[in-house]
Amino acid sequence: MKLVRYGPSGEEKPGLVDANGTLRDLSTHVGDIAGEVLSDAGLAKLKALDPSSLPVVDGSPRMGPCVGQIQKIVCIGLNYSDHAAETGAEVPSEPIIFAKSLSALCGPDDDVEMPRGSKALDWEVELAIVIGARAKYVEEADAMNHVAGFAIMNDVSERDFQTKRMGQWTKGKSHDTFGPLGPWLVTRDEVRDVHNLAMWLDVNGERRQTGNTNTLIFSVPHVVSYLSQFMTLMPGDVISTGTPPGVGMGMNPPTYLKLGDVMTLGIEGLGEQRQTVIAG
Amino acid sequence: MKLVRYGPSGEEKPGLVDANGTLRDLSTHVGDIAGEVLSDAGLAKLKALDPSSLPVVDGSPRMGPCVGQIQKIVCIGLNYSDHAAETGAEVPSEPIIFAKSLSALCGPDDDVEMPRGSKALDWEVELAIVIGARAKYVEEADAMNHVAGFAIMNDVSERDFQTKRMGQWTKGKSHDTFGPLGPWLVTRDEVRDVHNLAMWLDVNGERRQTGNTNTLIFSVPHVVSYLSQFMTLMPGDVISTGTPPGVGMGMNPPTYLKLGDVMTLGIEGLGEQRQTVIAG
Repeated sequence: MKLVRYGPSGEEKPGLVDANGTLRDLSTHVGDIAGEVLSDAGLAKLKALDPSSLPVVDGSPRMGPCVGQIQKIVCIGLNYSDHAAETGAEVPSEPIIFAKSLSALCGPDDDVEMPRGSKALDWEVELAIVIGARAKYVEEADAMNHVAGFAIMNDVSERDFQTKRMGQWTKGKSHDTFGPLGPWLVTRDEVRDVHNLAMWLDVNGERRQTGNTNTLIFSVPHVVSYLSQFMTLMPGDVISTGTPPGVGMGMNPPTYLKLGDVMTLGIEGLGEQRQTVIAG
Repeated sequence: MKLVRYGPSGEEKPGLVDANGTLRDLSTHVGDIAGEVLSDAGLAKLKALDPSSLPVVDGSPRMGPCVGQIQKIVCIGLNYSDHAAETGAEVPSEPIIFAKSLSALCGPDDDVEMPRGSKALDWEVELAIVIGARAKYVEEADAMNHVAGFAIMNDVSERDFQTKRMGQWTKGKSHDTFGPLGPWLVTRDEVRDVHNLAMWLDVNGERRQTGNTNTLIFSVPHVVSYLSQFMTLMPGDVISTGTPPGVGMGMNPPTYLKLGDVMTLGIEGLGEQRQTVIAG
């Protein structure tokens, strides 16, 4: 299934995109795409519905973040072997993690704010894992049973804030709108091989990032199992798994976003996002 | 006012501790100590109540985290000049920030878990700021108007996870129970001078930390204003402002917590906490 949340910011309603691409309203069945709805049992109930019985949503409403009531966004740094090679960084011996503030979350096509004083606003197309069931000390072999599905996240980053303002990357990852998530939560049963998905990002129509999840250093089950050793993952939690080559910081010379620039990005089977850069 | 949340984990009810130290039930007036209740207007409504009109709560229920519906916990590193001197670290030129996962949050007297494989479990008594009103690009002179009040946080830390497992401190700060918060949210009108509060922490009755917020490098309004340049602070968000000298990592030799150890800690006017270390 492709699950969505649509409507004005803060008032999103749950919906489903059917096989024909038609947006349908789920709000008579669930309150939100969140919590228990993300469990295997919750998703099975939705799957049992006949999509054609659900009301069609008129027009083209704004899409919100595809998951609600998220408790945390954890990001993995330097998780693509070709991206690590590009930056000259060593392949990490275990996952590098950092946090993105929840207040950064936004819809997949919302404008992205350039913070005041920003000179190094950058993009990162990423595969996001959405947790479906609480995970604490989960073995790798069992990890996928704790995953509801997958979505796209643009891990928008201010590189100077991230690296030149006294350490800890959170500082450059947490401005409002630095976390477009969606358009869809694609449930894990519909993603045939999460470790072989093409991904791309364009700025103003020029290709910047080209990658594939087949160069992930740490696999989806490894990341879920690893994180669950350090913190308890809750339903709705989002893990953004790192970015493939082609970020602005890695260009020669480094090239960053300007006001009015348009980012478009996508991952095979997970849809596309489009954001315009505005003043923050 | 001293506001609290009491009852079993996940089912906490709002309460108030009156001038005689009696716990009274607030649940007929507010749903939770959270969101709009933390605004100046929300707190004024509670202050207008006659405490003696509120039902007395029988017995000694568990205290939960004193704030509900928290969106993020941001911590400041190395923010006491005497602690920086103790560790040999340079005084930072601007605040070092990192995130603690929400899943780490617990009550002030809940047991603290030692994670599997932990060899360096440490303590940090800290003054926590609780945000009362949304803060984005707030000037220092206006920052206090965005603060609901103050509480104690023990910023429990696993030093090896924090520093020896591929960077980014979040990893050592986020295990379940690493964030005891409370017992009370003391509203800011009742804290005469937040920059002159004695603080202490004992392990098994032996004094380990002695400090005072008068050695804070970055003041409360500075920290709120500074953070609001990087991320939007929301009502209920918690900022833990750093720890004074005397952590286990700074002892010679470094001395860490063992199973069964008891931490007791307090800050002048903000109450006390007590946690026993158990297996995670």
